[in-house]
Amino acid sequence: MKTVYILNGPNLNLLGKRQPDIYGHETLQDVEVACSKLVEAAGLSLRFLQSNAEHQLIDWIHEAREGACGLIINPAAYTHTSIAILDALNACDIPVFEVHISNVHKREEFRHQSYVSMRADGVIAGCGTQGYELALSRLIRLLG
Amino acid sequence: MKTVYILNGPNLNLLGKRQPDIYGHETLQDVEVACSKLVEAAGLSLRFLQSNAEHQLIDWIHEAREGACGLIINPAAYTHTSIAILDALNACDIPVFEVHISNVHKREEFRHQSYVSMRADGVIAGCGTQGYELALSRLIRLLG
Amino acid sequence: MKTVYILNGPNLNLLGKRQPDIYGHETLQDVEVACSKLVEAAGLSLRFLQSNAEHQLIDWIHEAREGACGLIINPAAYTHTSIAILDALNACDIPVFEVHISNVHKREEFRHQSYVSMRADGVIAGCGTQGYELALSRLIRLLG
Amino acid sequence: MKTVYILNGPNLNLLGKRQPDIYGHETLQDVEVACSKLVEAAGLSLRFLQSNAEHQLIDWIHEAREGACGLIINPAAYTHTSIAILDALNACDIPVFEVHISNVHKREEFRHQSYVSMRADGVIAGCGTQGYELALSRLIRLLG
Amino acid sequence: MKTVYILNGPNLNLLGKRQPDIYGHETLQDVEVACSKLVEAAGLSLRFLQSNAEHQLIDWIHEAREGACGLIINPAAYTHTSIAILDALNACDIPVFEVHISNVHKREEFRHQSYVSMRADGVIAGCGTQGYELALSRLIRLLG
Amino acid sequence: MKTVYILNGPNLNLLGKRQPDIYGHETLQDVEVACSKLVEAAGLSLRFLQSNAEHQLIDWIHEAREGACGLIINPAAYTHTSIAILDALNACDIPVFEVHISNVHKREEFRHQSYVSMRADGVIAGCGTQGYELALSRLIRLLG
Amino acid sequence: MKTVYILNGPNLNLLGKRQPDIYGHETLQDVEVACSKLVEAAGLSLRFLQSNAEHQLIDWIHEAREGACGLIINPAAYTHTSIAILDALNACDIPVFEVHISNVHKREEFRHQSYVSMRADGVIAGCGTQGYELALSRLIRLLG
Amino acid sequence: MKTVYILNGPNLNLLGKRQPDIYGHETLQDVEVACSKLVEAAGLSLRFLQSNAEHQLIDWIHEAREGACGLIINPAAYTHTSIAILDALNACDIPVFEVHISNVHKREEFRHQSYVSMRADGVIAGCGTQGYELALSRLIRLLG
Amino acid sequence: MKTVYILNGPNLNLLGKRQPDIYGHETLQDVEVACSKLVEAAGLSLRFLQSNAEHQLIDWIHEAREGACGLIINPAAYTHTSIAILDALNACDIPVFEVHISNVHKREEFRHQSYVSMRADGVIAGCGTQGYELALSRLIRLLG
Amino acid sequence: MKTVYILNGPNLNLLGKRQPDIYGHETLQDVEVACSKLVEAAGLSLRFLQSNAEHQLIDWIHEAREGACGLIINPAAYTHTSIAILDALNACDIPVFEVHISNVHKREEFRHQSYVSMRADGVIAGCGTQGYELALSRLIRLLG
Amino acid sequence: MKTVYILNGPNLNLLGKRQPDIYGHETLQDVEVACSKLVEAAGLSLRFLQSNAEHQLIDWIHEAREGACGLIINPAAYTHTSIAILDALNACDIPVFEVHISNVHKREEFRHQSYVSMRADGVIAGCGTQGYELALSRLIRLLG
Amino acid sequence: MKTVYILNGPNLNLLGKRQPDIYGHETLQDVEVACSKLVEAAGLSLRFLQSNAEHQLIDWIHEAREGACGLIINPAAYTHTSIAILDALNACDIPVFEVHISNVHKREEFRHQSYVSMRADGVIAGCGTQGYELALSRLIRLLG
Repeated sequence: MKTVYILNGPNLNLLGKRQPDIYGHETLQDVEVACSKLVEAAGLSLRFLQSNAEHQLIDWIHEAREGACGLIINPAAYTHTSIAILDALNACDIPVFEVHISNVHKREEFRHQSYVSMRADGVIAGCGTQGYELALSRLIRLLG
Repeated sequence: MKTVYILNGPNLNLLGKRQPDIYGHETLQDVEVACSKLVEAAGLSLRFLQSNAEHQLIDWIHEAREGACGLIINPAAYTHTSIAILDALNACDIPVFEVHISNVHKREEFRHQSYVSMRADGVIAGCGTQGYELALSRLIRLLG
Repeated sequence: MKTVYILNGPNLNLLGKRQPDIYGHETLQDVEVACSKLVEAAGLSLRFLQSNAEHQLIDWIHEAREGACGLIINPAAYTHTSIAILDALNACDIPVFEVHISNVHKREEFRHQSYVSMRADGVIAGCGTQGYELALSRLIRLLG
Repeated sequence: MKTVYILNGPNLNLLGKRQPDIYGHETLQDVEVACSKLVEAAGLSLRFLQSNAEHQLIDWIHEAREGACGLIINPAAYTHTSIAILDALNACDIPVFEVHISNVHKREEFRHQSYVSMRADGVIAGCGTQGYELALSRLIRLLG
Repeated sequence: MKTVYILNGPNLNLLGKRQPDIYGHETLQDVEVACSKLVEAAGLSLRFLQSNAEHQLIDWIHEAREGACGLIINPAAYTHTSIAILDALNACDIPVFEVHISNVHKREEFRHQSYVSMRADGVIAGCGTQGYELALSRLIRLLG
Repeated sequence: MKTVYILNGPNLNLLGKRQPDIYGHETLQDVEVACSKLVEAAGLSLRFLQSNAEHQLIDWIHEAREGACGLIINPAAYTHTSIAILDALNACDIPVFEVHISNVHKREEFRHQSYVSMRADGVIAGCGTQGYELALSRLIRLLG
Repeated sequence: MKTVYILNGPNLNLLGKRQPDIYGHETLQDVEVACSKLVEAAGLSLRFLQSNAEHQLIDWIHEAREGACGLIINPAAYTHTSIAILDALNACDIPVFEVHISNVHKREEFRHQSYVSMRADGVIAGCGTQGYELALSRLIRLLG
Repeated sequence: MKTVYILNGPNLNLLGKRQPDIYGHETLQDVEVACSKLVEAAGLSLRFLQSNAEHQLIDWIHEAREGACGLIINPAAYTHTSIAILDALNACDIPVFEVHISNVHKREEFRHQSYVSMRADGVIAGCGTQGYELALSRLIRLLG
Repeated sequence: MKTVYILNGPNLNLLGKRQPDIYGHETLQDVEVACSKLVEAAGLSLRFLQSNAEHQLIDWIHEAREGACGLIINPAAYTHTSIAILDALNACDIPVFEVHISNVHKREEFRHQSYVSMRADGVIAGCGTQGYELALSRLIRLLG
Repeated sequence: MKTVYILNGPNLNLLGKRQPDIYGHETLQDVEVACSKLVEAAGLSLRFLQSNAEHQLIDWIHEAREGACGLIINPAAYTHTSIAILDALNACDIPVFEVHISNVHKREEFRHQSYVSMRADGVIAGCGTQGYELALSRLIRLLG
Repeated sequence: MKTVYILNGPNLNLLGKRQPDIYGHETLQDVEVACSKLVEAAGLSLRFLQSNAEHQLIDWIHEAREGACGLIINPAAYTHTSIAILDALNACDIPVFEVHISNVHKREEFRHQSYVSMRADGVIAGCGTQGYELALSRLIRLLG
Repeated sequence: MKTVYILNGPNLNLLGKRQPDIYGHETLQDVEVACSKLVEAAGLSLRFLQSNAEHQLIDWIHEAREGACGLIINPAAYTHTSIAILDALNACDIPVFEVHISNVHKREEFRHQSYVSMRADGVIAGCGTQGYELALSRLIRLLG
């Protein structure tokens, strides 16, 4: 159980392309590269995934439930609407961290509520794509 | 303008002493030591402060407004009630990060709303006292 | 039109594995076996299905709409969020029963609202996996 | 402790007479007969009671508290307004099931909230008078 | 079916004694006398009743359901809390009028909602004890 | 000061023509005739008016304020939206009664709130056009 | 009954003059010309009207009720506040379409609720002044 | 960039088959034919798609984002629940129109809120399947 | 008028038997003994009563209204639901104190609202069964 | 453009006559005289108007929009209900001040919300009729 | 650990001087004298303090946390707004009682919510300054 | 008692320095100079104070309570959160005016509620720093 899962929700495949004033210019590939370095330095392996489909994310969480030592998720829009993802995470005993690239608390009212936060051990928002690295730092210290 | 301010709100002087199941065993002095190392390594200096008084926090924010390159605040209970702290932060042009030791989103309903988040660039919650270090990492990269 | 559909929503593939204090120790296969007996005894056939995907459940409801004599659904997390499943059920003229293994009314506030209940003929909650059998008993008497 | 209590709340004495489109044509006597058969077949005895008075239902719950192996209640209108009945049930350690003849979730908004559901082990709604039998099946299996 | 029922809810036995600035100086006996005259003049008979008990009111409504040509009710405090009385009235096919001595809409917020109004054909409030007579006038014209 | 004002709000000029299932078949002229008889029998005179304009109703209330012994108003849709009419009535010291032909409490939610009820001495709803006569009976007894 | 009514509510006399970023540069006269062409091509006649007065709009709806084959209304601010206009429209049996030049759903919260939509057959918002033409196309097809 | 995308959400594959009193008798194929004519007459090409899957709709929006000159979407049930679709649309710079066959504002409360309307340029509801054509007319004029 | 009434609401007959972690181990008889001593020492007499019936409590309040010098009530579940008890108390001119054995403010949300508190002179909660004695101390000093 | 408009809403024609405890003893004529002096001293001219009609106020705002250098409005009851007046003011580029004679924030809840405040540059409440003069002082300094 | 802390919040230094109809005529010194007697009689010592500053109250609670056997607090206005005081109390293991001189439940809505009640063992309101003595009686019995 | 108090709340020491688009360029010293002139011209003396501390403002209000003829307060952020300041003002019998430099009603929702307005005689918002002078004009006329 030496694998870290990093899951990315809907529209994050557009990262670096859409609304750079909100989400910045880095792509998801850039994020994966940065995360890989940290994970490998800690002697772990990385599964870095993205899907627009709620059920795909659920399937990956089920997978992580059995084979991962920790999970980082940027649930994007599903943060606010998916009880199914919350339930999948509730079935996991590993550390879970929630990452948002922008500070969702400063945006529309409907982005203030998070089902995932009801399960996540920690939440990092508004630190740009560096948020993934921060979450990894925390996870690695916890696992250490 | 090479100073980082780290401000701590009410009851954080008890850190490490009260409710360790929620807040852990590290004291605020431990946190200061860990932060100092990071700040110094970045060639900056640190002002690390705690007060139970709302007005003292406001005064320090005013001070930071003129002399700091960045501000990290754990507003504790004032997170949810102090518009005055929000207004003080609104008067600052420097990067601001909000830290909570516990994941406030999993606790009582009244801890879900944050006035400080309306101004903070980023928010880190539930990463224990390491949250301060993560916020510093972000701040230092931004300043870099 | 002698087929009964029993549809199971997200995370129910983990039944018997996750949170046994809430959901018990029986697996979905156990449930299928128990239901098959009842259905066959009534001279009907059974289609027992599970998916984590909302659209898959919708597709199966469309299928049931044309080929089933009755439908039992445990929508799991989609109970509370899926108007699309409600709309699919609204397009069906057959009896529909909603089953929840746990008593959702005793759990988090957000589990108290059900879109599916706006269409279901009956609702059975908190009777464990036996709830499926109870729903089948009702359905069979109605069809009788 | 071999007695099952089945309690019926206000206006259920009119069952089979009032609004048959909602409540059907069977009377409470018909229900009692059907339940007796099930209870006796399980080697238990039945106390089947109805009252329009909240305090009478409370008194019977107190009685059941000391002498019953299980309790089924159709609290009718008191479902939505009686904290006193909830408190009485909270004082009982036996299995409790809540039955509604109609699917209350499809009716007026004020019928969607149930104080009794906060204590009941299971809830069955919209299965007509057969709901009592289903609740009994569940209770008997639990006791088995 | 020539009997008119006039039912009075809790605390109305104190009429004329308590808070005369709100409820006036006439007693319930005075009201009964005034109503009797109107009812008799119309060739009908009157059953004029008061109880502090919700179940007693329900029982009388059940009685009226089978033997009355019309029903006038001043449900007093139960106006705002008794779904059981609403359900009893829903089981009646006769005309129903709701009377309040004071204008409940000018009093505390919780007196603004009426379950009985969801069934009543008409509602008369703030006309003092004359409200009973006005309701009778309406009922008699309807029956005429 | 021997004049009674009866004011009718928007769309009541269509009375007897629109939606007779809700408002009946009598016209506003029929109502005026019935009211005239009662008023004259009491030795008073009647001003019976209708307008679709909020300001016209306000002007008439100002007029009534100085020249009337009582005022009956069916504010129709303005019941729920016009604080200006409430303010005009608040400036009057004469008895005020509010009449609704239908039982507004059984209709859409937005028809449940009445600004006029905050000032009216009494409210009569759901007694058809006879409601005007009932309000007059009350007013005449009060003036008597 | 060959006349189409197009009614315009408050402030629309300023169309083309006020806030062109929201409402565009065309005047109400331009709209009337465009609509006339469509109406005449369909062999119908047009009554195109504007008023700042709620009662005037009500009067025109009453007029349309007896002499029009269809009604298009841009109620402007009265959309959100006028139950009286809703009631007037409820008294009409002809097709009714509601038009908004801007997409009201993207503007202030209080512009999201529409009393007129509770009666309108269709609603067109955010299509600029072309919205009138689209509504006419729909109306003409319905009448065809 | 000469292609118009028309996307249809869940259950619209049943168009013409389910609940014709709400949705009419035309099928989605009929709609496609009507739209094709309009699009071709304007010298554009059409991609007309339907899916019950939220992620499929998101993928098509991403596709449209790069290859379309305009997008029309009938999000059906996802209108009210999908922030993910809103986010996908927010990433597009092309004109977007939202179509509903029925007037959603007259239906259940939960159908009154639309996430898609927060991004759509215009919204057309209650114009039956002609709504697609009206949206196309608007889009074509905008592109013209 | 030398009698003090102490009234106890529903389920308090179980005191000392049910849920001792919430309500303690003393019985209602123990409470009566302790209160008797205090009352007698003050030269007053005591009427100490319990009922599960709302109407019985109302009747006793009516009795106290005429014959008591003070009233202490633990309305239990009726605290939160009984406007009828509030109305009965509103008809009394004697001092009224409300007692709760547990601190209701720390329990479920629905236990936070008290109709009785709208009339009570004072409220004592969370002082166990000693709360009755504290209320008596206050009452006796007031009467002194 | 040297004219100042002062507009007064419904019921203000009664100023000095109705409810002097709330509104004082000065009449609107007194206010006009006091304002005239201030306006003339500033070398401006005054148009001082009152109407009970919402549309009349809108018309005057449209007039002011083209011919005034500033506008003061006491919208009275329309403050809380008129989006149409807000829209009219939104179409004006001149300074706008809102005046209330009484402190509306201390009165009924429904007087706390103001549509006009969403546009007004400043708001003065509870300064009696002197409030008009204060608003004028502000306006004159701004114009100076 | 033989010291009892009694803490008084903002404006209580005015006790006996301000609004005697609400708070009575006794001063805080009178209260201290009465409390001293009770505390000394129980062989304990008293620290009786008042401050208008939230942080001072927090500091004293921290002090009590280490040196007191019990704490009584009248948080005055901070009852309703101070999560910081709640957090300080949450860090204490000693018995805590909350006292209000007036019955806050009968006053403005915003006085009905208490953050302190979420931690206090008991709450006494509306017993005047005697409430402090009652709280002491309870505390002393608990410590006994 | 010839002194006027003008109190300024948190962050107002930054006036003229922070966010000049909202608060303008004048400093608090400029305001004091302007106020001094008015106060002296009226033969009164001025105490002009600012603090970031809630308790300091309370202390000054207590001081004003005994030595001032009037009080003007700009409570800044404490407007919306401080019941303690409201209570302090409630203990004063002198005229109180509330001033806000910006029009708080046009800003964030949480700035719309004011505890201070529940006591203030008048409120002036959005008149810039001239608001203080307007409040003084009103106060001086009242005292005159």
